[in-house]
Parts: sequence; C-alpha cells; structure tokens
Amino acid sequence: MIQTESYQQVCNHARQTALLQSTLALLEWDQHTKLPQSASGYRADQIAALATQIHARRTDQALGELLARADVALDENEFDENNDEAFIARANVTKMEQEFTRNSKIPESLASALARAASEGQTAWIAARKNNDFASFAPHLTKIIGLKQEQAQAVGYQDHPYDALIDEYEPGISTAEVATVLSNLCEELVPLVAKIKACGKQVDTSCLRRTFPVEDQQRFAREVSSAIGFDYDRGRMDVTAHPFCTELGPSDCRITTRYDADFFNSAFFGTLHEAGHGIYEQGLDSSQYGLPAGSYCSLGIHESQSRLWENLVGRSRSFWQHYFPIAKKHFPKALSDVSENQFYDAVNCVSPSLIRVEADEATYNIHIAIRFELERDLIDGSLLVVDLPTAWNDLYQKHLGITPGCDADGVLQDVHWSAGLIGYFPTYALGNLYASQFFEAAKKDLGELDSKFAVGQFEELRTWLNQRIHRQGKQYSGFELGEKVAGQPLGHVDLLNHLGSKFGQVYEL
Amino acid sequence: MIQTESYQQVCNHARQTALLQSTLALLEWDQHTKLPQSASGYRADQIAALATQIHARRTDQALGELLARADVALDENEFDENNDEAFIARANVTKMEQEFTRNSKIPESLASALARAASEGQTAWIAARKNNDFASFAPHLTKIIGLKQEQAQAVGYQDHPYDALIDEYEPGISTAEVATVLSNLCEELVPLVAKIKACGKQVDTSCLRRTFPVEDQQRFAREVSSAIGFDYDRGRMDVTAHPFCTELGPSDCRITTRYDADFFNSAFFGTLHEAGHGIYEQGLDSSQYGLPAGSYCSLGIHESQSRLWENLVGRSRSFWQHYFPIAKKHFPKALSDVSENQFYDAVNCVSPSLIRVEADEATYNIHIAIRFELERDLIDGSLLVVDLPTAWNDLYQKHLGITPGCDADGVLQDVHWSAGLIGYFPTYALGNLYASQFFEAAKKDLGELDSKFAVGQFEELRTWLNQRIHRQGKQYSGFELGEKVAGQPLGHVDLLNHLGSKFGQVYEL
Repeated sequence: MIQTESYQQVCNHARQTALLQSTLALLEWDQHTKLPQSASGYRADQIAALATQIHARRTDQALGELLARADVALDENEFDENNDEAFIARANVTKMEQEFTRNSKIPESLASALARAASEGQTAWIAARKNNDFASFAPHLTKIIGLKQEQAQAVGYQDHPYDALIDEYEPGISTAEVATVLSNLCEELVPLVAKIKACGKQVDTSCLRRTFPVEDQQRFAREVSSAIGFDYDRGRMDVTAHPFCTELGPSDCRITTRYDADFFNSAFFGTLHEAGHGIYEQGLDSSQYGLPAGSYCSLGIHESQSRLWENLVGRSRSFWQHYFPIAKKHFPKALSDVSENQFYDAVNCVSPSLIRVEADEATYNIHIAIRFELERDLIDGSLLVVDLPTAWNDLYQKHLGITPGCDADGVLQDVHWSAGLIGYFPTYALGNLYASQFFEAAKKDLGELDSKFAVGQFEELRTWLNQRIHRQGKQYSGFELGEKVAGQPLGHVDLLNHLGSKFGQVYEL
Repeated sequence: MIQTESYQQVCNHARQTALLQSTLALLEWDQHTKLPQSASGYRADQIAALATQIHARRTDQALGELLARADVALDENEFDENNDEAFIARANVTKMEQEFTRNSKIPESLASALARAASEGQTAWIAARKNNDFASFAPHLTKIIGLKQEQAQAVGYQDHPYDALIDEYEPGISTAEVATVLSNLCEELVPLVAKIKACGKQVDTSCLRRTFPVEDQQRFAREVSSAIGFDYDRGRMDVTAHPFCTELGPSDCRITTRYDADFFNSAFFGTLHEAGHGIYEQGLDSSQYGLPAGSYCSLGIHESQSRLWENLVGRSRSFWQHYFPIAKKHFPKALSDVSENQFYDAVNCVSPSLIRVEADEATYNIHIAIRFELERDLIDGSLLVVDLPTAWNDLYQKHLGITPGCDADGVLQDVHWSAGLIGYFPTYALGNLYASQFFEAAKKDLGELDSKFAVGQFEELRTWLNQRIHRQGKQYSGFELGEKVAGQPLGHVDLLNHLGSKFGQVYEL
C-alpha cells in the first residue's frame, strides 16, 4: 500500500500550497490584463502577502520532517519498480526534498533582499531603457549580481557559481554543458547566417506589413490555436503588452497575446508560441496537480513545446499549405495578390537584428548565446557591470555583424537581469534545441508528418508530445527527459540540420 | 498619542485579513466574469482554502486578546472626544470587538455545517427552480432553517431569534423595528398600487422594448455612470449573468451588468444601481482600508446608495431632461419618434408583477415585505417549510392581487434562502427607505437639485453623500447613521411621499 500516511500528508501539504500559488497567479494575471490603473499599489501588497505565505510554507521545518518521514516510509515498503504509482510517489518525494533543501539553503534575509532588489531593479530598468541611460541602472545591476553571487554560495555548486543559478530554471544541467552545446551551435550558425546575409537573395516581407484588422486576427489566432490543441474550455486568451502563459488551476490555463494591425507576425506567431506553452500545461496529469509529477519539467522543456508549435510546425511549408488559403479568407484585402510561396518565404525571412524578441528562427539562438556568455562572466566576476555595454556591443558585432546604436536597443533591451532572473536566458535556446530533437524523434515514431499538417491534422503529434513529455511532469530532470524522449543526449545537430535545410532552400544557398 | 502599540497591532491584523479578503473577492469576481468553463471545481477549492484561512484569522483567540489590550490602552489614555483620530480608533476597536464576539459565538462545526448546507442548497435550488419542483428543495430549506435557528441561539438575541440573523447584515436594528416600518409602508403602498391599477391609464412601455444595440448601450451606460461619479481609473465594468458590485482593494471597485439588446432598462438601470454601490465603495476612507472606519456601514446603507442613483436620480424628470436628448443620439433608430414625456412615463411604469428583480419602484417594497414576513415566521417556527408555497401565494394575492402560476415564478425565484441568507431581504427595503430620507435631507442642505440634474451636474449631491455617509464608514450602525444623516429616525413617510407624488402625476390620480 503506497498511500502511506506520511506520503498523503506530504501530498496534502503540497496541494494546499498549490491552491495559494494558483491564487497568486490569478492576482498576477489580473494585474496584467484587467487591473484598474490606480490599483497597482494595493495589488503589490496582495501579491507580497500571499508570496510571503507561500515562501513560509515551502521552507516550513514541518514540511522537511514530513518529507523525511515519507521518504523512510516509501523505502520501508518494498515496491514493485514497475508499479507506476510507486514510481510516481518516489519521484514526488525525491523532487520535493530537492526543492525543500534548495529553498531552505537561502536565508530569509537573502530572499527578501533579492525580492526588494528585483522590484527596485525593474523600476530602475524601465526608466533607464526609456532614457537610454545605462549608468542609472548600473548600481542596481551591481547589487543584483552581488546578491545572486551570494545566492550561488548559499545554494552551493560543483564547478561554477552559475551552476547554482541555472539549476533554479533547468535543474540538472551544468554551466559547462550549456557552454558546449551553445558554442557548437554558434560555430555553425554564425557562418550560416553570414552566408544568408551574403547570398544576395532578398526575401520580400512587405506582405506581412499590410493591414490585418485586429478582430480578424483574433478569429484566425483562435481558430489555429484550437486546431493545434489549445482547449478554450480549459483556458482563455486575453490581450497584454507582453504575451505570457499562466496556469491558475488544473483546468485553467490562460495565454495572452498582443495585436498589431499593421503586422501579421506579432499576434499570430505569438499566439502559436503561447498556445504551445498552454498545450503543455493542459497536458499535465491533473490527478497529480500541485505535485512534481503534475508540474512542468523545466523551463527548457516548457520552451521546447512553444518553439515546436511556433517554428517547426507553424513556420513549415506543409502548415501553410493548409492554412494559407484559410488566411486568405480571413484577410482578403491583405493577401489576395500574395502566393503561398511568397508568404512562406516571408514568414521565414532571416535578418540579423538588434532585438531578441523580434529575431528570426536562425539568429534567435545567437542572441541567447551572447547573453549566456555575459551573465556567466558577470557571476564569476570575470566581467564587471561597468564593462557590460562594451562587451555586449562587441559580441553583437562579432556574431551578428551589427552594433546597437544605443544601449536601449542593446544591453538594456531585456527585463530579465533587472528582475534577478540570471540563468534563465539559456532555457530559451535549450527549448529550441530540445524542440528539434523531439520533432525528429516524433517523425521517427510516427512517420513523416507533413502530409498531416497539410490537411490541418495535428492530433497525432500532440498525442505523442503528451505521452512522451507532458504526462511525465517533473519525474525526470529536463536533461534526463530530453535524452529519454530524443533517444540521444542534448546536442545541436538536429536544430542545425533543420535550419540549414530550411534556409538553404529559402535562400537557395 | 493614540497610536498605542496594541492599537497598531490590531490595525495590522485587520489589514492583513483584508489583503486575503480582497484576494478572495478577486477569485469570486473572476469566477463570474472570466473563468473557463471547466475550471469551476478547482476554483471552489481555492475559494474554500482562502475562506478557511480568513475565518481562522477572524476568530483567532490572539486577535481577541489584542483587541482587549487595545481597548484598555485606549481607555487608559484620556483622549479629547473631539479628536477625530481618537474617535475613529475607539470606533474601530469597538466594532471589531463586536464582530469578534459575534464570530466567536458561532462554533466551527456550525459554521462549516452552514457553509455545506448553503452550497448544497444552491445546487438543489437551481434544479428545483428549473423543474418547478419545490418538494425537491424543501428538505434543503428545512435543513438551512434549522441551522439558522441554531445560529440565532448561539449568537443570542433580545426578543426574537430573527434579531440575531438580521444583525449580520444590518447591525443594530430589531425585528420589531423592521416589522413596524414595513407594515406602515405597506399600509399606504398597497392602496396606492391598487389605485394605479384601477385608474385606467395605461403607460406605454413599448419604446423600451425596441432594438438597443449592445455596443451603444455599453457606451451610454459608461458615459452616465462616469457622470454620476463612478471612477473608471479606480474600477471597471464587466458583463455577468447576475449584476453585482465587488471591491478588490481601496482603488479597485468592479461592477457588472447584463445587456439585453431588446430592452433598454436591464443594462441602463442595472448599471446606475451598481455604480451607486461602486461610488459608495470608492468614497470610503482608503486610509482606513480593512478597518471598520474604512468599511461600508451596513447592507441597508449600501442599498440606499444604489437605489438613490437608480431611482431618485435616474428615474427623475430632471435627469431625463438632460439625458433623453443624449439617449436619442446613442439610439437614433429606437428613439427618434419618442418624446421625452413618453420616455419618462415608460421608465416609471407601475405594474404588479411576480418577479422581484423585475419589479418597479412602487411594488418592489411589497415583494420585500412579503419575504420578510415569511422568513421571520420560518425562523420562529410559526411557519413550516411545507406550508411556505401556499403562504407565499396567499400574500402575493393579498398585497399585489396576483398569484404565481408556478413555484418557479413564486417561492423558488430568489437564490437567497438556498444560500443561507436569511435576514438579508429587509436590507433592500431599508435601502429604499434610507434613500428617500437622505435625498430629502440633501435637498434641505443643498436646495433643490433638479436644476443641477437637468444640466447633467451630480457632483454636489455626490459630495454631500460622500461626506455624510461614505466617509463615515462603519463608525456608526446603519440605524444610527441613518438617523444622523436624515435628521429623523427611520420611517416610511419620505419614501411614500416620493412615490405618491411621482405616480400621482404619472397616473394622473
């Protein structure tokens, strides 16, 4: 009998925490979508009150004791290793003990100093970006880097202090492993991008810059996100300045998007991306809600799901074989004189640019590799905040052949560092890497998928992703799950093959 | 120095509870406005978890001790009675002690039995109303009445067990006082309604039943609710099946409405009503947020604010002198051939009908008097649930001259009893009574207001209400505040004069 009393108590504790956590997520979702203008101060107080409670529950000594008792009880009962329930219970307790240990290592004083620095940092960053004034942000970033170094010491690490930070977002992967895979990738990607730049062929993207009425975009985005599997009975879509996906309960996943009436890509590919995240959340095992086995695996795995639907499906030729005629019906004025080929090329245009969130499929990972290198060096002290803008500009020149005209378009463009999110950027590239490996594995299992996409059928792929990835929750680390699903260790080859073959064809290289 | 340590601790405790309470209100607001279809089960769990926490805080023995210490500390310091701050501190502690005492008298087991019975009762009621099957609901109502009787015993009362129940919604008023004022009112109101019915003049309301496009209704409702003083920077309006007003923070008041494209009144007067509630909430002293001095006084006083704007302002001739030409611009198709007089008469049509929420200004209070009499008798045992439908129908025949064709349009029409809300109905009529008395007092202070309304100026009235009522919070009971503001005890004369004079003119009596 797996349902030992102590294991049940652990589960109840976690589920109670999840009730508060999902309530906190509602406070945040509402803040971004519905909150009246003057209410933000009080909302911050509500969020802080609940966050404090949740932190206290997560580091409660009583939870530590419960987990220890549950661990012993699971060991004392000899379970059949092939028993799913026993396997899941073991995974839940192990993961929760790891998280408890990690959380408990961060002193209350450091946690609250980090929260305060992140809050002040974001405010300073907004002003600094607006005024293109890195100097005013530098003291905040210096403070944040100092606290993150302190955090790394408190948590502990094997080789590099950055190990302790990336572990928060992508447990189990090391700085060295990230460095290797990104450097292998860039070694071939940088020349590919340079070749595209030099080849002379210009892809005409003007058909994406026509008038696309917002209401028609809404209808089309909803139709396509439903078709790939986002369930609007268990979720919704709203409008925000910065798109995101959040999860307010086992049947309440909410995505957001933004509409630009003069540009097709923002809302459409943004919706596919967030719907990909949403399909993952909706695919988790809701009977394990609030427990590791019912939680997403890692940010890298999460991002693999959004990127897979956005790029590998949503920017494929077969996808547009089905959807371009439908798009023409939704946007007759904008697309009547455009051919499927022109449109396909346009959504696959490669062009080195300064802003990460606007980058194309090929250059995106170079933006990430640059940020990874810089933040790793900030954390080990080999790069100082004062030298950061120059280092940033040098790397953009070196890898992409362009230099920001101002810091607002350079080192100040992303919110992450100001919010204390260090070790987070690599998960975006890991997502792209995993996505390509998973997509290859899926085709190995299911046979070619293009003929399905070409008739608007996505269920086979979604079911495969659900069984292999979504339903696994956090039983494995991202690194382990990636290898298990892909049938090979994390690597750059599949992504590079995909990019090389697609852009070789688009740019006739 | 008023800021004794114990008083500050009491304030902090209350403000912390308010953070959770307003978060709970968001969970409920979202449930009614945005929640995905499949997410209601988990939402109920989130609400229950937070409600349990809040209940525990409110009945926490430590709070009782804090309040006792703060009480003594306030007594020990001899404060100048004219010192506002001291007066407010004293009122806060006294009201909180009263609430704590009341809450502590209800045993945990009774509180949870009531919550369960109310939840099951509402589910049973929905089905019973749908199937016109009172018998299936009767056992639930019997259970609820039994528990409310138990609650009355636990809380204690002077004369009638119903005193203990109405005290929850309208502290300080007695069953006998409600009975007297409602009976005085009905004694004159029933003949007035009979006279209107018999007079022969038919008011033509067909102009309200034309096509009013929802988007135009939205714009008009927003324009008028802003003009009377609802601040959309500190609030918002959404669509729900049943309109309500809720308050998620000192600058976050949300109202809802429903649109019927074929009927003008639902959304327009519904919005005025909810905006009246909202203006009250927005007018509270936000520096006292979470404390009695920053909370609404009572449900009766709350309702006086909604009814005042909905009926005394929104159904007045001077209001439509200003707004009818504007309404014609918003609804050119529906109103082009309608005169201001026709429209004014139409929105002031009196017609005895079966459904309370659709009742006109005159008959509404009779619906309430009937419910009061029935629920009082259920609580003291002089009426049994089994006899309730007959008693209901008899009273409708006696007072309004009509009999429901089925229980769904009779005794099963309201959710309140199924939700355990007993003692709540009278506050609707108290709201109408207070509203008339306040309106007369305002005119005594400010001079006639019609010339202001006729040019769309409402600020003088709103400021008066704000100073006299909103800013007083819960420092006084509704009964006390009513008398203070009206300059006379609660009574039926002002309401009756208003109704008699308005309908005498409309119906040429």
